[in-house]
Amino acid sequence: MNDYDYKKLDSIFHSRIRLAAASLLYHDGSADFNWLKIQTGASDGNLTTHLRKMEEVQYIKIKKSFSERKPHTVYSLTEDGRKAFEKYVKMLDSFIRSTI
Amino acid sequence: MNDYDYKKLDSIFHSRIRLAAASLLYHDGSADFNWLKIQTGASDGNLTTHLRKMEEVQYIKIKKSFSERKPHTVYSLTEDGRKAFEKYVKMLDSFIRSTI
Repeated sequence: MNDYDYKKLDSIFHSRIRLAAASLLYHDGSADFNWLKIQTGASDGNLTTHLRKMEEVQYIKIKKSFSERKPHTVYSLTEDGRKAFEKYVKMLDSFIRSTI
Repeated sequence: MNDYDYKKLDSIFHSRIRLAAASLLYHDGSADFNWLKIQTGASDGNLTTHLRKMEEVQYIKIKKSFSERKPHTVYSLTEDGRKAFEKYVKMLDSFIRSTI
């Protein structure tokens, strides 16, 4: 425990909904809003806010297109986002190893 | 990843400073404010707020006494707090196992 420094834990990912969404994007590469919503169980508003926050720090990127004349938005992690996510998970892992 | 449900992750502990403080109390049994402050590196105001939040849900308890005529406050986890912390860490662990 003594080596746990909370400031080293990326606050962007240390939010339950952002963690859920980032983890899904990490594993599946990309996803649209509805799929993220179903998988995370978050509300529209919450999910929008959290995705925007990750977009602001350029951890995720957005690709807009049209599908059957309807706008379709697909989210994915950027290279920086993937690296930061891996670092965050490693930090959490070392915290847990020193705790249990 | 598919079995990760963010709502199962205790939001009380899913805060970087509360996680640091709870982890210290879990390992050391009890601690006073100054020690927690030094160990976590949090500011007075932040630490006070986060400790109060854990106290409100009865995850931590406070024992006030006098030491050389000065008030001395010692914090520790309640039994509920210890159990909730163990559950939280296990949830995080299973999340990480399914991620890396």
